Amino acid sequence: MEQLEAMGRAAKEAAAALARLSGAQKSRLLEAVADELLAMQEAIVAANTNDMEKARQQGLPAAMLDRLLLSPERLSGVVADVRKVAGLPDPVGQVLDGRLLPNGMRIERRRVPLGVIGVIYEARPNVTVDVASLCLKTGNAAILRGGKETLLTNLVLASAIRTALARCGLPEDCVQLVESTDRALVSGLLRLSRYVDMIIPRGGSGLQKHCMEEATIPVIVGGIGVCHIYLDESADEDKALPIIENAKVQRPTVCNSVETLLVHENRARAFLPKLSSFLARHGVVLHGCPKVMEILQPLGNAGYCPVVPWRDEELSREWLTVDLNVGVVAGIDAAIGHIHRYGSGHTEAILTANMQQAEYFVQEVDSSALFVNTSTRFTDGGEFGLGAEVAISTQKLHARGPMGLEALTTYKWIGRGDHLIR
Amino acid sequence: MEQLEAMGRAAKEAAAALARLSGAQKSRLLEAVADELLAMQEAIVAANTNDMEKARQQGLPAAMLDRLLLSPERLSGVVADVRKVAGLPDPVGQVLDGRLLPNGMRIERRRVPLGVIGVIYEARPNVTVDVASLCLKTGNAAILRGGKETLLTNLVLASAIRTALARCGLPEDCVQLVESTDRALVSGLLRLSRYVDMIIPRGGSGLQKHCMEEATIPVIVGGIGVCHIYLDESADEDKALPIIENAKVQRPTVCNSVETLLVHENRARAFLPKLSSFLARHGVVLHGCPKVMEILQPLGNAGYCPVVPWRDEELSREWLTVDLNVGVVAGIDAAIGHIHRYGSGHTEAILTANMQQAEYFVQEVDSSALFVNTSTRFTDGGEFGLGAEVAISTQKLHARGPMGLEALTTYKWIGRGDHLIR
Repeated sequence: MEQLEAMGRAAKEAAAALARLSGAQKSRLLEAVADELLAMQEAIVAANTNDMEKARQQGLPAAMLDRLLLSPERLSGVVADVRKVAGLPDPVGQVLDGRLLPNGMRIERRRVPLGVIGVIYEARPNVTVDVASLCLKTGNAAILRGGKETLLTNLVLASAIRTALARCGLPEDCVQLVESTDRALVSGLLRLSRYVDMIIPRGGSGLQKHCMEEATIPVIVGGIGVCHIYLDESADEDKALPIIENAKVQRPTVCNSVETLLVHENRARAFLPKLSSFLARHGVVLHGCPKVMEILQPLGNAGYCPVVPWRDEELSREWLTVDLNVGVVAGIDAAIGHIHRYGSGHTEAILTANMQQAEYFVQEVDSSALFVNTSTRFTDGGEFGLGAEVAISTQKLHARGPMGLEALTTYKWIGRGDHLIR
Repeated sequence: MEQLEAMGRAAKEAAAALARLSGAQKSRLLEAVADELLAMQEAIVAANTNDMEKARQQGLPAAMLDRLLLSPERLSGVVADVRKVAGLPDPVGQVLDGRLLPNGMRIERRRVPLGVIGVIYEARPNVTVDVASLCLKTGNAAILRGGKETLLTNLVLASAIRTALARCGLPEDCVQLVESTDRALVSGLLRLSRYVDMIIPRGGSGLQKHCMEEATIPVIVGGIGVCHIYLDESADEDKALPIIENAKVQRPTVCNSVETLLVHENRARAFLPKLSSFLARHGVVLHGCPKVMEILQPLGNAGYCPVVPWRDEELSREWLTVDLNVGVVAGIDAAIGHIHRYGSGHTEAILTANMQQAEYFVQEVDSSALFVNTSTRFTDGGEFGLGAEVAISTQKLHARGPMGLEALTTYKWIGRGDHLIR
C-alpha cells in the first residue's frame, strides 16, 4: 500500500504539470509518444511474444490469445490512434459559461482536467496506450493497472510513454503502471481517494461490480450492453430485417449489439418466420418466449434458425454471440416494462412508422441511448462524432453513453471582483 | 432492508410518473406543496414543539436547538422558497446539443431527470422541504432520511408533501421519508444501487466520509469548506481588510467562510498589526504560525486580537467560529502548496493588484471556486445566479461548487435515422 501511496502522490504532482500545458504542447507530447512507440516496436513485439508464449502454455483459449496479441500491424493501428488523438481539439481551458453579476463580479466556469485517473483493465494491451493518450490529451495523470496476461507488453509500452514524457521535459509519473499483479493493489487503488479523482474499469461485469462495491472514488461504470429492439405494430418489415440483422451479427462481441428483440403481438405470426429465415444464414440461434416457440417451432430447422425456449436468467445477460432472445409483447408499454426489468440502460431501439410511438419510446425508456429506426450498433464515440471514446457509461452521473474527451474534464468557478464583500 | 427495497421500487415507479410531467405541471405541483404546508402549519409547529421538548430534555446545546426549530416565521420562509423554486425554469427536456451526422442520423442529447435521489441529512427540518421541492422540480423521486431529533416534524412535513402529490394525481411515493431512525437503514440506503441514482449527504464531515466509504451509488460530497485567502505582495491593504473581515465574521458557521489567511512575507510586518487591530472588535482569535507570533505577540491584547500558536491539525479543519489561522508565506507558490496540503477544495481567494499573480493563482489552485479580490463568502448558488442551490460539491465529478437544478439531471442520447445500419 505504501507503494500505491507513493504512486498517488507522484501522480498528483505530475498532474499539476500536465494541467499547465497548452493544447499545442499536449499535441507535441502525443506525437512524441507515437514516435517513441514506433522506435521501440521491436522491444514491444518481443515482450508481447513472451506474454503470448506464457498464455499459450497456460492453455488460454484462442479468442483470449487473440485479445493479447500486439502484432506490428496492430501496433501501427495503435500509433495511428495516438496521432489522431493528438490532432483533436483541446477541451481544457474552454470557458463553459460566464456572466457579469449585478454586484460587478465576473464569474465564469472554466474547463479543467480532472487530475488523476485510475484505469483498471483486462487483457488487451492496446488499452495501455489508448487510455494514456486520452488522459495526457486532457491534462490528466494516469495510474494504469492492466491484466497479468500482458504485463510484459504493458511494461514496455509504459516505458515508451514515460520516455516520451521525459523527452518533453515532463515528469515520467504522468503515466504510471502498477507493476505487480497482486490483486490487493486493485482494492488499494480503489480507495486512494486522496490522490485519484476517477476510476475507469474496462472489463466485464465482474470487474465493474467489484469496483462499484470497493471504491471510495467515483467509478465510471459501463460497457455492459443488454440492448433491446422493439418492433412496433407499424414497423416496415423489409426495412426492419436488415436493422435486426446488423444489430445482432455485424459484431456480436461488442456491448452495443442486440440481445433481445421484442415484437408487437399483432405482427408476431407474420414477422417471426420471415425473421428466422432471414437470419438463418448467419447461424443465429433464437431463444423464444412461449408464444415465439408456438409460432416458430413447427417450422422446423430447414431454412430457419434453431429455436429454443428463452430462460429468465439469460434475459439480463450479454450473449456476445449470435444468439438472440425473441419475445412477443402486448404493446409498447409491455416492451418498455421488459426493457426496464432486464436491460442494462445502455442502448435500445424502436422500429416503427408511428411518430407518437417513437417519441413515447425515447421519452419513457431510461437508457443512455435511444434509437428510432436505427441499429443499436451506433452507440459509439466515433459514430456520434465525439472524436475519441473513453468508455461507454451506463450510469447517469457525470457522463452517460459514449464518453468523449470532455468526460475526462471537470470545471472550476472563477470569480473576479473589485474588492467585493457580501 | 426489505422495507428499503420496497421504498426503492416504489420510488423508481414514481420517478417514471414525474419524468413525464411538463414544466407547468411541476410548477403547479410545487404550488400545491406550498399550499398544503400552509394548511398544515398548526400540525407542523405542534410536531416541532414536541421535537424541541424532547431535545431540551436530552440537554442539547442552544445552538443545536436553534437548528431544530421550525417556527411559523421559519415555515413561511420555507414555503416562500418552495414557491420560488416553482417559478424557476424547468431544466428537463432541454436539448443540450445535437447534429445531423453524415449518415443522416439526427442525434441529440436531451436533459432528463436522474431518477431517484437519496438524501441523508441531520438536524434542520427545513431540508426535508427544500430537498423535496428541488427533486420534484427536476422530475426526480426522493428518499429522505433526516435526523432523529426532528423525526416528528419531518413526518408531518413529508405527509403534507405527499398529500399535495396525491391531490395532483401523482404517486405519493414520489417523496418518501425513512421513518425509522435505525442507523442500519442508512447503510442499506447507500447500497440500494438498483433503485437509487445519487446520494446527497447534507451534514458534517463524519457523515460525508461514511457515505463515501459505504455507498455503491455515486455520492455528492461537499459542504466542507476549509477556505483560504492569500494576501499577495501587491495587495491593497485598505481594500483587503474588509474582505478578510467579511470572509471571517459575516457568517462564520457556514462552509464558505475563511479558515486561514496566508500573507506574503514582505507584507507581514506592516499588515498583520493592522489586521489584528481591524478584527479585534469582532472577538476574533488569531492562530499564528511562528512568524506571526513573533510579530503579533509583543503587541499585547489591548486593541488587538488575542493570538495563539497555530496547530497543524487545526489547519485542515473548519473553525465554524471567529477563529482564524494566519500564516506568513514566502510567496504565491508556498501559499498554493499550503492550500493543496490543508484545503478541502472548496473556495480560495487571492488579494492582489497584479494580474499575472491573479491568473497564476486561479490556474494553479485546484478548488471548486477561485476568487480574485472577492470574499470567499460568494460561493453560493444564489450569489452565482443559479436560482437554487442543491448543495456545494467539493468533488470533481458530475458537479463542482454550487449545484443548481441542472445538477439533479442527466441526459440521454436520442438518434433518429431512416433505417440506418452500420
